[in-house]
Amino acid sequence: MADLREEALHIHKVNQGKLTTNSKIPIRNARDLSLAYSPGVAEPCKAIYDNKETVYDYTMKGNMVAVVTDGSAVLGLGNIGPEAALPVMEGKSTLFKSFAGVDSFPISLNTNDVDEIVNTVKLMEPTFGGVNLEDIAAPNCFVIENRLKKETSIPIFHDDQHGTAIVTVAGMINSLKISGKTFSNSKVVINGAGAAGIAIIKLLFSVGVRDIIMCDSRGAIYEGRPYGMNEVKDEVAKMTNKDNIEGTLEEVIQDSDVFIGVSVGGALTKEMVESMNDDPTIFAMANPDPEIMPDDAKEAGAKVIGTGRSDFPNQVNNVLAFPGIFRGALDVRATRINERMKIAAAEAIAELVAEDKVSPDYVIPDPFDKRVAPAVAAAVAKAAMESGVARIDVDPEEVRKRTEELTIIHEK
Amino acid sequence: MADLREEALHIHKVNQGKLTTNSKIPIRNARDLSLAYSPGVAEPCKAIYDNKETVYDYTMKGNMVAVVTDGSAVLGLGNIGPEAALPVMEGKSTLFKSFAGVDSFPISLNTNDVDEIVNTVKLMEPTFGGVNLEDIAAPNCFVIENRLKKETSIPIFHDDQHGTAIVTVAGMINSLKISGKTFSNSKVVINGAGAAGIAIIKLLFSVGVRDIIMCDSRGAIYEGRPYGMNEVKDEVAKMTNKDNIEGTLEEVIQDSDVFIGVSVGGALTKEMVESMNDDPTIFAMANPDPEIMPDDAKEAGAKVIGTGRSDFPNQVNNVLAFPGIFRGALDVRATRINERMKIAAAEAIAELVAEDKVSPDYVIPDPFDKRVAPAVAAAVAKAAMESGVARIDVDPEEVRKRTEELTIIHEK
Repeated sequence: MADLREEALHIHKVNQGKLTTNSKIPIRNARDLSLAYSPGVAEPCKAIYDNKETVYDYTMKGNMVAVVTDGSAVLGLGNIGPEAALPVMEGKSTLFKSFAGVDSFPISLNTNDVDEIVNTVKLMEPTFGGVNLEDIAAPNCFVIENRLKKETSIPIFHDDQHGTAIVTVAGMINSLKISGKTFSNSKVVINGAGAAGIAIIKLLFSVGVRDIIMCDSRGAIYEGRPYGMNEVKDEVAKMTNKDNIEGTLEEVIQDSDVFIGVSVGGALTKEMVESMNDDPTIFAMANPDPEIMPDDAKEAGAKVIGTGRSDFPNQVNNVLAFPGIFRGALDVRATRINERMKIAAAEAIAELVAEDKVSPDYVIPDPFDKRVAPAVAAAVAKAAMESGVARIDVDPEEVRKRTEELTIIHEK
Repeated sequence: MADLREEALHIHKVNQGKLTTNSKIPIRNARDLSLAYSPGVAEPCKAIYDNKETVYDYTMKGNMVAVVTDGSAVLGLGNIGPEAALPVMEGKSTLFKSFAGVDSFPISLNTNDVDEIVNTVKLMEPTFGGVNLEDIAAPNCFVIENRLKKETSIPIFHDDQHGTAIVTVAGMINSLKISGKTFSNSKVVINGAGAAGIAIIKLLFSVGVRDIIMCDSRGAIYEGRPYGMNEVKDEVAKMTNKDNIEGTLEEVIQDSDVFIGVSVGGALTKEMVESMNDDPTIFAMANPDPEIMPDDAKEAGAKVIGTGRSDFPNQVNNVLAFPGIFRGALDVRATRINERMKIAAAEAIAELVAEDKVSPDYVIPDPFDKRVAPAVAAAVAKAAMESGVARIDVDPEEVRKRTEELTIIHEK
């Protein structure tokens, strides 16, 4: 691990970061110059002036995603600021490119003010085909995302929320197959009321789960709880916990079918798992230490266990979702990424495992499974067209093939 | 020309624009991912958090320039807006990369409001090592540049102003050698009071020219002129035209040594050239039609003639300046691009011609002269260090060599 740290620092230094910009039309001589710059460049300018929509034809916009942060919630490091956040944003851009051929550019903003962030992104809208919000602390991330969705006409996607939610739901689709349960008859307990937890609740609702209780460090969230509430938790309380059950995690997890942890290491004990219904599913995603270690969960009766770690089976890794989601959204020039597109992504991820025969140690594909981004891109493009948020029609099968050509990842 | 237009449109469409982003560290497998992203990426994040200056070591910032516009003064097309301006901005980025290995990214802003543009660039400062302002209309361009220079600590450079001024001064250095005149004993008339004209005045002042008259469409600008003045022209009137001479271009150009046109085609007649002192220098830079055609100017007695066109000798082309200037500024992590750096760039450009033996048809190097960007970069880096705006010291000769390695252009 010390070696990895040193090598990571080293490769960042010798390369002076990770992202570079390149010309698709290199300028070697006067002819190149006259085509890519003056006087030839006036032609696409005039075409776009005549019909603004052709900006998708003649410029980089249609394949370019902004990776926007304020550096307020970076990895497990917290509010480290926009400069220190930049390596993560560049890293995100390398993933977009390597997994799905999506061009992207980090914009690390020197402010934590919601209005300033919203306004800046709006002003940059002409340049980008989509925006990936990254590592912005709650509750600002919710406000920023909601406002930008209303005030722009390009996809806005907060990956820390929706990427995690999509991959979690993908894993649940398969784990329920194994346990013979369904979304509508499962009781789900989510521990951790941060950005990811809230997004998971919303996506679970979209796929038909009705019995959900969310816990924070003070236990179950319910309507009218007299302590530790805020606007977001009020909303959670309205959507979930229909019977207004009070109590600690230990109390409310009894007789539940699924535990989803987006909280802290060690939050789930073997005794709590034992108190769940038969064949429970555990997604213990706290990093680097999960809410419960997979071996302990298994001993306590868990059927399927997923974590955020690459050294255990069923890694909930956002990279399974965001590259293909933006690939599909960009290919149809989508105006947004809606619930149907997110569900389509989750189903596409789950389906790839089902084809290979799902098992308790295999409900989520490997992050380097080359089939994933192409399948997600095709499914998302299709869902965008069907739900009326695509600017153009494309053949999903073409999207899949093109994404296959663009990815450079190799299987393990 | 019809062919060129069609081909230009075609290559923009088949490539979906001109700029792409690439990973310097492609992600092919889990090991790559652990180094470039989680968990390894936390190391450069922590290093930058501990010492913000290391953002230049571990991220793309130190080689990344923002090309910022509001689309208000694009080529000869005018205020065509941020979307239609994007092909020019991408073109600029391809030039940065092809001529000097400078990474850059277009930011086309959906506003003409000075405060919004200034604030947006300031918020993005963590991401960029410099800012190239492009195609922003006067007088906003002056205000934006001045404010950003004061309110940021990275180089801010409005190429339409300073690029043109630097290459013009480079040409004048050599033309004065031919005519046996000096900056301090030459009378210069500038026609056109736009962004480039103002910048040329300022740089001419910096190199020692004292006798300057600027004309706009209503003739000579002088202090207290009762018509057609504004804040910028008031400043011009204070700096120039010491004797407060009134009159038309035709009247004030008499007995001058240098004419610099940044106005409109046909503004300069043969009779006017004939009224100038012996061996006058004419830079007729209106595009596509110069203020006077080179043959006419020669017939009327002009010694040296430069234009903005590639089909005549002595093309005043900004690409001779901006790639090398930013290369040099970035290599010393400059906090600004000051007058000394601009003069150093002009002298470096002029010197390359002198080495080859200067002549009336050769006072400015060819835009594809591969020696230019390396020479400019080295001179600018040196001037930055000497004038105290460099964050680090480097060997200018190393800057020159590295720039040579980075350029991909070929001689004609």
